[in-house]
Amino acid sequence: MEFDIKEIAKKAHEAYFKTQTFDNEIKNSALRAIADKLNQNKELIFEANKKDLIEAKTLLQNNEITKSSYDRLKLDEAKFRDLIKGIEDLIRLDDPVNKVLLKRELAPDLTLEKVSTPIGVIGVIFEARPDCFIQIASLIIKSGNCALLKGGREALNTNTIFSKITTNALLSVNYPQNTINLVYSREDIKKMLDMDEYLSLIIPRGSNSLVKYIKENTKIPVLGHSSGICHIYIDKESKFQNALDVVLDAKTQYPSACNSIETLLVHKDFSDIDKLKQSLSENGVKIEENPEKWDIEWGDKILSFKIVNSLNDAIEHINKYGSGHTDAIISDNKENIDKFMKYVDSAGVFANCSTRFADGFRYGFGAEVGISTNKTHARGPVGLFGLTIYKYKLKGNYDTVSPFISGKKTFTHKDLEY
Amino acid sequence: MEFDIKEIAKKAHEAYFKTQTFDNEIKNSALRAIADKLNQNKELIFEANKKDLIEAKTLLQNNEITKSSYDRLKLDEAKFRDLIKGIEDLIRLDDPVNKVLLKRELAPDLTLEKVSTPIGVIGVIFEARPDCFIQIASLIIKSGNCALLKGGREALNTNTIFSKITTNALLSVNYPQNTINLVYSREDIKKMLDMDEYLSLIIPRGSNSLVKYIKENTKIPVLGHSSGICHIYIDKESKFQNALDVVLDAKTQYPSACNSIETLLVHKDFSDIDKLKQSLSENGVKIEENPEKWDIEWGDKILSFKIVNSLNDAIEHINKYGSGHTDAIISDNKENIDKFMKYVDSAGVFANCSTRFADGFRYGFGAEVGISTNKTHARGPVGLFGLTIYKYKLKGNYDTVSPFISGKKTFTHKDLEY
Repeated sequence: MEFDIKEIAKKAHEAYFKTQTFDNEIKNSALRAIADKLNQNKELIFEANKKDLIEAKTLLQNNEITKSSYDRLKLDEAKFRDLIKGIEDLIRLDDPVNKVLLKRELAPDLTLEKVSTPIGVIGVIFEARPDCFIQIASLIIKSGNCALLKGGREALNTNTIFSKITTNALLSVNYPQNTINLVYSREDIKKMLDMDEYLSLIIPRGSNSLVKYIKENTKIPVLGHSSGICHIYIDKESKFQNALDVVLDAKTQYPSACNSIETLLVHKDFSDIDKLKQSLSENGVKIEENPEKWDIEWGDKILSFKIVNSLNDAIEHINKYGSGHTDAIISDNKENIDKFMKYVDSAGVFANCSTRFADGFRYGFGAEVGISTNKTHARGPVGLFGLTIYKYKLKGNYDTVSPFISGKKTFTHKDLEY
Repeated sequence: MEFDIKEIAKKAHEAYFKTQTFDNEIKNSALRAIADKLNQNKELIFEANKKDLIEAKTLLQNNEITKSSYDRLKLDEAKFRDLIKGIEDLIRLDDPVNKVLLKRELAPDLTLEKVSTPIGVIGVIFEARPDCFIQIASLIIKSGNCALLKGGREALNTNTIFSKITTNALLSVNYPQNTINLVYSREDIKKMLDMDEYLSLIIPRGSNSLVKYIKENTKIPVLGHSSGICHIYIDKESKFQNALDVVLDAKTQYPSACNSIETLLVHKDFSDIDKLKQSLSENGVKIEENPEKWDIEWGDKILSFKIVNSLNDAIEHINKYGSGHTDAIISDNKENIDKFMKYVDSAGVFANCSTRFADGFRYGFGAEVGISTNKTHARGPVGLFGLTIYKYKLKGNYDTVSPFISGKKTFTHKDLEY
């Protein structure tokens, strides 16, 4: 049978009209069924992952993938446990759908409610990590959406078994067949971008060039970040050891993560500038005082470094060269902290802590489907909440607008408890 | 001096870094200054509007605009009073920005806050009505954003004086010069669509073809509705007079409005089908039982009409042919009402009232910047809330992620009062 992505998208769209109405109990039973089937099929999953690893080894030997990509591909006991635990965490979370967000009497007997709903069919494109598929599918299910999921080709065997397990689990609790759909080829991404008839949102996770390509080639709203140029600014009034601890964590704990810093700004009157540079150097961080440009995403233990004259200069630098992801200030001055947090226009503005905290799990969102630097819909780490929108429900007593227009009736606009 | 829209957008973007930080008091003083200056310059405004009307008369005689467009162009005393009242209403509303939306202890001494913020520079393209410019500019100011505003060319003289008054008023309370900018030509719309560097959102109000054109030609998120195919479904259990009252209001009170209905669905067992058709006919509504297609936006006293076998069929028809704007059920059966409201996937799902209530003012939002059929960011009538997004503020005590990863520390994720 040929894989026809347009047909799949259409069926997912039909499935959505059912899943949008599912209550928390049904959705949790689906998540429970997936966790159970994962446990039951653990051996098959590890076998599939081994197949991916064997194929990836060849790619690695031919320098077609990096060593770290290869390492990330491996599913181990710990990752498998985390996967199951992630599903269990999601089960415990409140239903993000059907929440009353506003209740208002427009006029006597005419009551408005704003209620959270799922979005529709969501296309997610993600990297070759064996845990992504299940994590994303679980978030999609818990939020009542449907999805087309395109994973990295290196994880194809693992994703294929995950997809089969997910669909079997969903069918066992009477979900529609096409709730969660694996998409196989790169060509299908291109087709997905044209299907604004069926898809309501695209979430690309991956390289800058992929995200840019997607934004440029679709009418469908795109949620994502094309780059993570994060900064730390060390204020005049801050202690050497505090600053060093946070900077080292934000730069070296996981240099290729999007929430690691790329640029360090230091106030000219910070007393330990030289000591700081030396300590960073001793910890393997290469300092670039004259980088070619100020918006390089090093993704490595390299740090653009700039002395600034003032807090204002730091804010201006960040708003100009940053990517609006996450930026932090190290300072003992409360006023400066507040000013930094107010004026820096980023999804995350942090004080005296590492930018690496910018993460859906660390924020307590259960998990994240991605991090957004968009200025609309959802910003920062996107958990369940970012996978919802709302509808307005208005109940009346056969009300018409005519008497309100003629002035016979007037709106009361009284907010009600809910 | 040449009008360079790219330069204007850049300056608006710079202005935004200031306006994003303004508190409610400053924003209200700006709105107050605009209301005052409008009152002081009332004569000049009416003169400018008269000029527009004279020029439009020629267009009308040459059939380049319709009679109703011509009529809508006229500013009268009542509209002027409403304009001032609209500003005063906005002043009384809470600040939509700086609202705490979530407060959570991630770990002891590490506290996360989600706080509402403005979005950035917003491009709004709107129809030739003399009251639009001030209404939209006021919403933009109250929400801390900046804007490029392109009004219908027929209202150019009126919009030009409004723009001057607005900028003078803003300067008088120390706002940046380029907070609100009038855009003059159609060619500039095209340029706006390319400026994703400076613009964060485009809101087109106007014809379907305009909205479609914009969605197809920009990477910038677009908020709007391309069509308003609204339905009323008359359930089996509903009374003739109730149904007729609501349908007449929803079809005839303002047939060209986007929230007027285009299609009437009637349950086959509704007892007064013939009487209903006759009454509609007597009230000047032309019934189309076999329309060419089911998604025609008549914009006139014409109504696509279909007998359906069941509530399910009605829901399916609406989800298939509707535009997700606003759809209503007339029924005395609570269960059917709830089912309709749950399964119909539209921005507004109404029971026993006219679809014409779908409107920002009627919802009590102060005013609306447009109605959205998007499934992301904002849906339905968009007031101040839809002009905001949020940022995450995280304050710590020099916290690093390392001890959380090694297991030395654990997240507490305790929601705090706010």
